[in-house]
Amino acid sequence: MSQLTNPHLNQVVNQHEQDAKDLTRTLPASRKVYVQGSRADIRVPFREISLTDTPTGLAQDGVEKNPPILVYDTSGVYTDPDVQIDLNQGLPKLREQWIVERDDTEILDGLTSAFGKARLNDIRTQGIRFAHISKPRRAKQGKNVTQLHYAKQGIITPEMEYIAIRENGRQADGVDLRQHQGQNFGAKMVREITPEFVRQEVASGRAIIPSNINHPESEPMIIGRNFLVKINANIGNSALGSSIDEEVAKMTWATRWGADTIMDLSTGKNIHETREWIIRNSPVPIGTVPIYQALEKVGGVAEDLTWEIFKDTLIEQAEQGVDYFTIHAGVLLRYVPMTANRLTGIVSRGGSIMAQWCLAHHKENFLYEHFDEICEIAKAYDVAFSLGDGLRPGSIQDANDEAQFSELITLGELTKRAWEHDVQVMIEGPGHVPMHMIKENMEMQLTHCHEAPFYTLGPLTTDIAPGYDHITSAIGAAMIGWYGTAMLCYVTPKEHLGLPNKKDVKDGIITYKIAAHAADLAKGHPLAQVRDNALSKARFEFRWEDQFNLALDPDTARAMHDETMPKEAHKSAHFCSMCGPKFCSMKITQNVREYAKGMDEMKEKFKEEGSRLYRAI
Amino acid sequence: MSQLTNPHLNQVVNQHEQDAKDLTRTLPASRKVYVQGSRADIRVPFREISLTDTPTGLAQDGVEKNPPILVYDTSGVYTDPDVQIDLNQGLPKLREQWIVERDDTEILDGLTSAFGKARLNDIRTQGIRFAHISKPRRAKQGKNVTQLHYAKQGIITPEMEYIAIRENGRQADGVDLRQHQGQNFGAKMVREITPEFVRQEVASGRAIIPSNINHPESEPMIIGRNFLVKINANIGNSALGSSIDEEVAKMTWATRWGADTIMDLSTGKNIHETREWIIRNSPVPIGTVPIYQALEKVGGVAEDLTWEIFKDTLIEQAEQGVDYFTIHAGVLLRYVPMTANRLTGIVSRGGSIMAQWCLAHHKENFLYEHFDEICEIAKAYDVAFSLGDGLRPGSIQDANDEAQFSELITLGELTKRAWEHDVQVMIEGPGHVPMHMIKENMEMQLTHCHEAPFYTLGPLTTDIAPGYDHITSAIGAAMIGWYGTAMLCYVTPKEHLGLPNKKDVKDGIITYKIAAHAADLAKGHPLAQVRDNALSKARFEFRWEDQFNLALDPDTARAMHDETMPKEAHKSAHFCSMCGPKFCSMKITQNVREYAKGMDEMKEKFKEEGSRLYRAI
Repeated sequence: MSQLTNPHLNQVVNQHEQDAKDLTRTLPASRKVYVQGSRADIRVPFREISLTDTPTGLAQDGVEKNPPILVYDTSGVYTDPDVQIDLNQGLPKLREQWIVERDDTEILDGLTSAFGKARLNDIRTQGIRFAHISKPRRAKQGKNVTQLHYAKQGIITPEMEYIAIRENGRQADGVDLRQHQGQNFGAKMVREITPEFVRQEVASGRAIIPSNINHPESEPMIIGRNFLVKINANIGNSALGSSIDEEVAKMTWATRWGADTIMDLSTGKNIHETREWIIRNSPVPIGTVPIYQALEKVGGVAEDLTWEIFKDTLIEQAEQGVDYFTIHAGVLLRYVPMTANRLTGIVSRGGSIMAQWCLAHHKENFLYEHFDEICEIAKAYDVAFSLGDGLRPGSIQDANDEAQFSELITLGELTKRAWEHDVQVMIEGPGHVPMHMIKENMEMQLTHCHEAPFYTLGPLTTDIAPGYDHITSAIGAAMIGWYGTAMLCYVTPKEHLGLPNKKDVKDGIITYKIAAHAADLAKGHPLAQVRDNALSKARFEFRWEDQFNLALDPDTARAMHDETMPKEAHKSAHFCSMCGPKFCSMKITQNVREYAKGMDEMKEKFKEEGSRLYRAI
Repeated sequence: MSQLTNPHLNQVVNQHEQDAKDLTRTLPASRKVYVQGSRADIRVPFREISLTDTPTGLAQDGVEKNPPILVYDTSGVYTDPDVQIDLNQGLPKLREQWIVERDDTEILDGLTSAFGKARLNDIRTQGIRFAHISKPRRAKQGKNVTQLHYAKQGIITPEMEYIAIRENGRQADGVDLRQHQGQNFGAKMVREITPEFVRQEVASGRAIIPSNINHPESEPMIIGRNFLVKINANIGNSALGSSIDEEVAKMTWATRWGADTIMDLSTGKNIHETREWIIRNSPVPIGTVPIYQALEKVGGVAEDLTWEIFKDTLIEQAEQGVDYFTIHAGVLLRYVPMTANRLTGIVSRGGSIMAQWCLAHHKENFLYEHFDEICEIAKAYDVAFSLGDGLRPGSIQDANDEAQFSELITLGELTKRAWEHDVQVMIEGPGHVPMHMIKENMEMQLTHCHEAPFYTLGPLTTDIAPGYDHITSAIGAAMIGWYGTAMLCYVTPKEHLGLPNKKDVKDGIITYKIAAHAADLAKGHPLAQVRDNALSKARFEFRWEDQFNLALDPDTARAMHDETMPKEAHKSAHFCSMCGPKFCSMKITQNVREYAKGMDEMKEKFKEEGSRLYRAI
């Protein structure tokens, strides 16, 4: 079949070629740098953006040097030209040695989950299976391998030190941030984040480090309101489409643009195999909603779910390396009728699965009933919990209602139960909430959930803009991030409408990087404003290339500039398309400076003359 | 030249064909309706969105009727199929009779501005000139024709009644809005807006009705914090490009999507003629920054500006029908050096023109010095002021600084001076402001500017996302709208990078409609939530078409849905692409309702049995 006669095939081939290029491309003027910690294998990655000089005509060589800017880098070794990338091999196991050294885990002979074993022995999965599946690791009998457990023992793990370096960057030195103090609603914005501070935050439950011992490839990161606000990107196939390749490409694409964690929400075919590929190649923690897969195992019939099937799913996923589980254990039978008079009922998928189960059996939620057993599994692998808000509002009308807050109180109770097991916990939040009701969500969460990190979807601040819900929700996300939410779950433009493609994923990520960064600025994170200042200085000085390179999305910034002024020379032009070459407000400001300098000199002169005059008397 | 050999020409022709189609296209399931006021010529336009029935299987005919939704409509008669549209003729003069009846104006023999006359007599402008220029109207000697003047006299003008109907809509009747009470920071959210309430708000200076007597084509609207939050879209050519046709097309395009006012910021060729075309065809008020054109008249050299040239420009534009002028009269000489140590100096174009002028002459800003004369002109035509924030911050670092707030205090002084002339005033606000510093802007503005309406550009909540500044700024805009800002000036994705094209204009508008609507919801505007509820109900009931049609941008919502589920049948499918056909959270909620109903019936039964039991005793 010729290329011309099969445009669809062409499209697929082109997409694969593009994905391959995107995989290891580095952003312009950027290089991967590492900051080393107390031991050789603590090497914390940053992206260094180099800047051009500012011509001054004043300094010795007529230029002012602009120091390079370091930015937090979630892209993994894909952007390190020194590392050979092979998706079939998976990423290097960065944390393996640290895990081994703790000597509290053992390598099992094989998978212990029945489903995992079945898939491994299923000849039909051979063609799609990741080729180098390791034997799973698990806590030794009686051991607890969570970062929370270590933190409570006073142990600073390499993960914690790594995070301290990562959150600090190097820019703290000598940066003048006149207005770095934000309004942080009780968050602790410390000038320098130490490994001990990280430990304390984890020990108190205010922060979590999702780090399954079976995902040693992941680069340690922290979720807590005294750290940089993080964002999560959802990927995953559905019954209607998408292949393993595409999901891996979405994951690397999302982390390239700044996703701090990835949730694999697959509900389609080959969920187990898809997840293996994603985890083995993911530099960031992976979250899942195990009930989705459990539901697939019972043919999509919620009432057929059993604790045994769910438990096996947890073990299956824990042994693959899932770093956090969304568990909808707060959807209690007695809360379900509270949603009956809602405009939009129960819109959480997990929430409605559990509600359906509870109603069908007229029994209490089996996740709630078996919660301690779930904790036992979690602490054997260090899987963190993301306690799901199954009763979150699906419309402005349903925001902050009895059902939502009743569940939240139960999530607080479960938080304490998880902490008794030293299992790390964060709490999921809504949803659709008008602006004036957002703060109450944060306050209720802090109160009822004992300061466990909050992890919210948006919230969307209006229902009337399908197609633009990345924006309706970024407004709410920025605000709730400022108020103290630790991680923001992105929303793509396709929310409510369809499955996001690569462009939608990127739009969602960039939009949420904006929201998270705006929140960091407003909270007064000591380092947040460094990049704003560098970009604004570049803008003011017409260093166009620097402005593009410092942008969250250099490609789009450059492309938009090209649309109006495509010529290369314009990239150093001292004017922009908005005002044209004749008049420029930025140019005038140069005059203001000279004038103000003149005034200062006049003052100095007057002073001098005055004092001379005085002396003459 | 064949079509194939000149792709650029093709592109231009295609663009014109598309513009022509866009001009009168009506949105899906929508029709123009009018609500009549106390007289036959007060006919207030709305867009009525009709909805499909909800199948229930319960009611008589098995359906629940969903009443049509009325939405505020800025698109003018372009979307009224009963009106013949001819851009060469301009729009019908809706307000002419009202103006005539007041009997306080006269029609002049011709233009009185020297420049206006020169352009009219310039043979070279003949080909681009609007063909039906009316003789200008002006207040009779000693008369004041501003809406503020009438309001202070206790007169309710037809414009005020029109606005009362427009702001109310018809939906107030019988709509249950459980949570309509927002948190409005002192704004008055009345249940029904009466003409008398409109008059009071205008009389107090808390609201303005931009309505030049020479722009009788415009449909009355109001800007004030006790009304719906409005948005402005900037258009205008520059030295680098764009034709008159394109600017008119941008104007009709922007109002089609919801721009409440348009600012024509042209700085390129034929500014005078471009403006005439725009005004004659604009159903919304037009604002300008007259100093831009004045600067063009002196060849772009700021220091060559004179009061005489500026004055003639004001008259020229007032006689064409400009509804509001941005006047940078607050950039005082003594404030200019306050910007010297800023990261990004003076970024307002008008601000830097005046700063440059002040410095060059070492004289006080001539707009400030001649402010009373400016008021005399404004009140003879009812041109409102938008007092410009020439010293607004251009970066996060420069937010809320001495220069900015010093100017704001002067704007407050000028507000009082304008009010002495009964000239309507609003105040322009920043710019780049991190979230935690936004509220202070609103509070300072209310205090220093005596509650005159605030009109802000964004603000942008971070500097690091060029290419996405519609989003960085929508976050700030939604918040400041909630706090009390009356009108939000849109920002397009091209901000800082280039001239917006049609797509950028639409992206900016929709994003700002979101911000304004989110603010209306948060403030508790009585009608705001009606559309959210209708859309959420449609979503919950899988009425896909209704969901698209109720969206701010039905085209994009539908197109995105088509990407994943293109088949027509899917538009009525009781599932969506996210979860697939097997499992659906919305479906489950139906079960919850039946269960809850069952529980209620059980309770009723118990009660009944209980009481029977009681009676039996």
